Amino acid sequence: MTADLSQISHSELVSLSRQGNRAALARLISKIERRSQDTEELIGALFQHTGNAQVWGFTGPPGAGKSTAVDQVIRILRARGHSVAVVAIDPSSPFTGGAILGDRIRMQQHASDPGVYIRSLATRGRHGGLSHATKEVVMALDASGFDFILVETAGVGQTELDILKLAHTVCVLLVPESGDSIQVMKAGLMEIADIFAVNKSDRPEADKLVRELMLMIGLAENASRRGHAPPVLKTEAVRSQGMDALVDACIEHGAHIRKTGLLAEKQTEFLAEEVFDVLSEQLRISFVSSMSSDTGKQLIKELLEKKLSPYQVANALSGRMA
Amino acid sequence: MTADLSQISHSELVSLSRQGNRAALARLISKIERRSQDTEELIGALFQHTGNAQVWGFTGPPGAGKSTAVDQVIRILRARGHSVAVVAIDPSSPFTGGAILGDRIRMQQHASDPGVYIRSLATRGRHGGLSHATKEVVMALDASGFDFILVETAGVGQTELDILKLAHTVCVLLVPESGDSIQVMKAGLMEIADIFAVNKSDRPEADKLVRELMLMIGLAENASRRGHAPPVLKTEAVRSQGMDALVDACIEHGAHIRKTGLLAEKQTEFLAEEVFDVLSEQLRISFVSSMSSDTGKQLIKELLEKKLSPYQVANALSGRMA
Repeated sequence: MTADLSQISHSELVSLSRQGNRAALARLISKIERRSQDTEELIGALFQHTGNAQVWGFTGPPGAGKSTAVDQVIRILRARGHSVAVVAIDPSSPFTGGAILGDRIRMQQHASDPGVYIRSLATRGRHGGLSHATKEVVMALDASGFDFILVETAGVGQTELDILKLAHTVCVLLVPESGDSIQVMKAGLMEIADIFAVNKSDRPEADKLVRELMLMIGLAENASRRGHAPPVLKTEAVRSQGMDALVDACIEHGAHIRKTGLLAEKQTEFLAEEVFDVLSEQLRISFVSSMSSDTGKQLIKELLEKKLSPYQVANALSGRMA
Repeated sequence: MTADLSQISHSELVSLSRQGNRAALARLISKIERRSQDTEELIGALFQHTGNAQVWGFTGPPGAGKSTAVDQVIRILRARGHSVAVVAIDPSSPFTGGAILGDRIRMQQHASDPGVYIRSLATRGRHGGLSHATKEVVMALDASGFDFILVETAGVGQTELDILKLAHTVCVLLVPESGDSIQVMKAGLMEIADIFAVNKSDRPEADKLVRELMLMIGLAENASRRGHAPPVLKTEAVRSQGMDALVDACIEHGAHIRKTGLLAEKQTEFLAEEVFDVLSEQLRISFVSSMSSDTGKQLIKELLEKKLSPYQVANALSGRMA
């Protein structure tokens, strides 16, 4: 029964993962993370099985309690009989990368549950590539039959927000101390949030933040939401307060986007973006190879001598790379 | 004497900016920021005049006092008779975007000095494009004859660190409260910092952070530095303490990289990266146009129906876009 996973084909690996073989799934994901030349064949083998999972994104400032909240969401979805995969994006922020390991360890309490799969992806040094790899990891989890895929990311930079472009439903967690609603608006969170949760809501100022957010949402009536104003919920993830309501709100949002056609639009947009990511990755590979050719070296020499501008070199290369 | 800048050619605009016409420079930069179709011609007109400025990058966590420090560096370089341009990158972090405007206003005290030019670039929503536009803004400042170009960015994410790839000398500002040296190492700052400044060094724990950094630098002996171990300086930017030493350290680093050939290598690498950015931008434009063609629409339809994988669509498109 213990097949040698290193010897089997990509479609057999996908097939094993779809049967619940977690070692096969782990291997699939590692291959995707490594960006090997096999990725194309691998995605080809699993792509036809995608499109069934609901993907929820969770973001918020460091210290908002995202991991605890995600932990509770897992528990609630499991209690309702659903399988759940989590992709945790380790933040790329140089100055806030502290408590990650502890969070990950905490989530390991689900490790013995075959209906839960948790995987961390490290972001540092690969911001373009990360969202591409993350999308393909989500595809692998989707193809492996998980009902729900939760993507958890620290909202510390544009990169982390971009990752949420793969989620059907985005939940922004805030805490009373994390700043006021003006900051939320400036940060562009008003555009990406489908649901706001004010976590640690036992703290002073929680009600004030809730009121401000609701006012702001009222002002920022957004046509592209098709009648879904983001609800603002109060939660205390650490005491399991308000978490069932949060899960219900996510599920309701899912029903809303299916009904209004927003889901189909998002799926089209996400897949088109995946195609663009593939093209970008191919461009990087062919650029690196042209640079080491004789022509590439000659072009760089003329660039350094200011005989050619960067645009002229790019135009010369794009003819050759085609 | 007040030429209508909207009517003149790109090379005349570059020529005016090189003569010190700040309205012409502002117009050049705005054109670059807008990424119009003229950019190619514009860069072609100014590229030959680049390569003379020294580019220094300043990063650090929010609250480290970067703007005050940059302000002092401007003052010192001006006192030494140099012209200085500043590119301030507004952070894209959703949760730390607070005090920016005040900082910018503070720097306006140099507004009446013709030897100083300060420009902010906003990052939100364009992380790939930002470093490209920033590089070209630096080129425009370089071509306009500034001796020094200071690039100030909050180290809140990978994007912000990437921007430092256009600096010859990178100065990382820390404060005693910003965390310990382990975090600095985890964040990859050890690799990018040419100089560390422990700012607000009158505070407790400053000496401890200095000692830790020096120990860490000793451990992380880095061959690619060619014998330049990053100095660790104590500064109090707000009281002008240690700032001359910081400027001297930046100038010494500049001399070191010129002498060892590192500068030439950096220049080659930065220009090659600029060429790649041009290619990426061209890819994005031709991708958007293919997507709206009949073939593009047909490919996306087959993608949604899972008849084609994203890689197959990408391969079909890259044939057509060539």
